[in-house]
Amino acid sequence: MKHFIAAMFVMGFSLAQFSCSKPETFNEAEVRKSIEEACAKYSKAIQEGNLAGVLAEYTDDATAIPPDGEIIKGKQAIEELYKKFFQIGMKEIVFTTIEVGGSGDTAYEIGKTKVRIQPVGQAAIQDSTKYLVIWKRQPDDTWKVHVDIWNFSLPMAGK
Amino acid sequence: MKHFIAAMFVMGFSLAQFSCSKPETFNEAEVRKSIEEACAKYSKAIQEGNLAGVLAEYTDDATAIPPDGEIIKGKQAIEELYKKFFQIGMKEIVFTTIEVGGSGDTAYEIGKTKVRIQPVGQAAIQDSTKYLVIWKRQPDDTWKVHVDIWNFSLPMAGK
Repeated sequence: MKHFIAAMFVMGFSLAQFSCSKPETFNEAEVRKSIEEACAKYSKAIQEGNLAGVLAEYTDDATAIPPDGEIIKGKQAIEELYKKFFQIGMKEIVFTTIEVGGSGDTAYEIGKTKVRIQPVGQAAIQDSTKYLVIWKRQPDDTWKVHVDIWNFSLPMAGK
Repeated sequence: MKHFIAAMFVMGFSLAQFSCSKPETFNEAEVRKSIEEACAKYSKAIQEGNLAGVLAEYTDDATAIPPDGEIIKGKQAIEELYKKFFQIGMKEIVFTTIEVGGSGDTAYEIGKTKVRIQPVGQAAIQDSTKYLVIWKRQPDDTWKVHVDIWNFSLPMAGK
């Protein structure tokens, strides 16, 4: 009987561990792989001028914090931002992930981009940015951008 | 005896819950309060020109991503950054926390600052920034800055 009681104790313990294991699970390598896949989908959408494809990588209540304006909240506001980006001739964003960390359903990613902007009838402009993104794990185990902030790598005129 | 077995089962379950409860615990209101307290300590250190006080709010392997240069990693590099800030006359940073979220030991904070810079013998300059900070919970349940990125609110000349 003692063994039986011990077994019940262990079973209770194990069930409980199982029940709380998911929120604790944060496999950095796996999360990084998922984030890099999401970045690749985002890059492809930018190259195709596919606004819906870009927006699909953001959560519904995402926040974007662009360098040259106010904080932008919600998918509709982010859509307006990307419409402007496409209008000014944004053609390509290449991401390099530098660091991924986090816990539970929250990840952060530090990275760099190379951006190519080509306004109609003009030469292409190359730019570099650094960024920090908060990714949120979705019910299907993919990750979406929840907060997105970036700045430029070169000293700014007048600052 | 059945009651005893059930009790052992429940006890095992409860102990396990207790053992894994900490990483799951993320009380947004409590975390926000801790972060705002840390911001207040940071602000006080800035006003006092207290470099060690500012650095105490960062993790040892923290990253800073300033708008006008490269990504800066580690406390020593961050110390050099703040030495420059003090040299150019940074006198005050007032933080307004806008949103706090996260899970486990990882929190993010979206906020705004008002910055006052007063170079020696010159008039004070006021500036505004928006920022995203990754905070890491410490063993003593305080939170420290792990990643810090900001940009300016006004359009940048030449961008």
